[in-house]
Amino acid sequence: MERVFIIKIGGNVIDNEDALSSFLAAFSQIKGQKVLVHGGGKLATELAQQLHVPQQMIEGRRITDAETLKIVTMVYAGLINKKIVAQLQLLGCNAMGVTGADGNLIRSHKRIINDIDYGFVGDIDEINTGFLNNLFNEVEAIVVAPITHDLQGQLLNTNADTVAQELAKALTINYDVSLVYCLEKPGVLLDANNDSSVIAHIDKNKFEELKVNKAIYDGMIPKLSNAFTAVDSGVSKVIIGHAGQLNQLIEGNAGTTISN
Amino acid sequence: MERVFIIKIGGNVIDNEDALSSFLAAFSQIKGQKVLVHGGGKLATELAQQLHVPQQMIEGRRITDAETLKIVTMVYAGLINKKIVAQLQLLGCNAMGVTGADGNLIRSHKRIINDIDYGFVGDIDEINTGFLNNLFNEVEAIVVAPITHDLQGQLLNTNADTVAQELAKALTINYDVSLVYCLEKPGVLLDANNDSSVIAHIDKNKFEELKVNKAIYDGMIPKLSNAFTAVDSGVSKVIIGHAGQLNQLIEGNAGTTISN
Repeated sequence: MERVFIIKIGGNVIDNEDALSSFLAAFSQIKGQKVLVHGGGKLATELAQQLHVPQQMIEGRRITDAETLKIVTMVYAGLINKKIVAQLQLLGCNAMGVTGADGNLIRSHKRIINDIDYGFVGDIDEINTGFLNNLFNEVEAIVVAPITHDLQGQLLNTNADTVAQELAKALTINYDVSLVYCLEKPGVLLDANNDSSVIAHIDKNKFEELKVNKAIYDGMIPKLSNAFTAVDSGVSKVIIGHAGQLNQLIEGNAGTTISN
Repeated sequence: MERVFIIKIGGNVIDNEDALSSFLAAFSQIKGQKVLVHGGGKLATELAQQLHVPQQMIEGRRITDAETLKIVTMVYAGLINKKIVAQLQLLGCNAMGVTGADGNLIRSHKRIINDIDYGFVGDIDEINTGFLNNLFNEVEAIVVAPITHDLQGQLLNTNADTVAQELAKALTINYDVSLVYCLEKPGVLLDANNDSSVIAHIDKNKFEELKVNKAIYDGMIPKLSNAFTAVDSGVSKVIIGHAGQLNQLIEGNAGTTISN
């Protein structure tokens, strides 16, 4: 099967002009089909401050009231998405930017309120795989802003890690899918304070062993659990590493590869 | 040849929730291929005020400095474009929103400075007609924000009327194209103060006659000149009328039709 790469970048790349340019240069060189999922970085928070819209984060998730939804739609789907697309065009990589509303690519529902009302936050119900496959025929790269919709006219702010994961899972029907998460760290570290202690490969046994030994820190456990969920759903491998090493990451020469 | 409608809406529709909803309901009912080109309305100006970015308009054109470019990219390509796409999805019309950077749809160059430096404003060089034709196979409606790019990594603010006209001209190769401009007035008026004085049809002879008689007012002359340029380039007809009468406009039962 043909390979496809789903690559997710966060604030440490988006907020740094040089890091973004270097990353996009490497991204544009990847052979074959590729999808870039971006978060929003600090820009949404900064714009909210300038507009005096108070922001509340709970466990790293943004509470999205109506005004905040406008802000993230402007920053993610407008400013960042189109800046990336224009830069990729300069690099000779014909890219198209989309949200989940475009072509009904990602349908979600407003998160059910349990303890916390996250506001206009969407949990994903369905990926329009046919549309995504067809887009691969039209352009060399698809750039996805993490805004989805409920097919009832409502846009919804959606976690970019989850968007990447669900797109990856949906593409396993037709492709050999690699899912790459670019972090600030060079991979999953055996010693959180030592960037040279990257664990090259983690399978399920290793994951259990690392948890028992308390070798991996709290925030990494859900990331790895999600990675194994993706692998169990047919994603060939999940790669975690630093955005500055993209080419080495996809060749398996850097970062941490999670697979069975 | 199959028909395609290119419809341009401006501030009087975009700035009014009810007007926009009614318009989109009518738009979604149009049979066949359709493209909606939207301007930005008051929202960009309001956001600029909130962010204390001074705005300067010359002859109705926005001088676009670097900060203003960010604002129009956020408002046009983000907020308005995705709001329209989500509302069309609710109406059962599978829509996709794009800028000129997406799929290299509209390549432009930064406007040459003569008397006035318009800043990051783009004049259109080329439409990627093949890409546009292919998108028609994927979705029922294409929603275009008037942001283009120069293929050198620079986004450029571009006049929405011109975007609509250039898209219309490019599509004449494969389609019977109608170009519809939605204004606040019900059409070209014989008496600017009488909304019942719509001139149903204007050909070139009539246009010359109206100019000689000074029956049409200043701002309408360039609009009509552009309409005849479009017609001379193969566009079947240009229709000018009120957004609230969209269905009648495209059936030729309201507004002013410009053709040879």
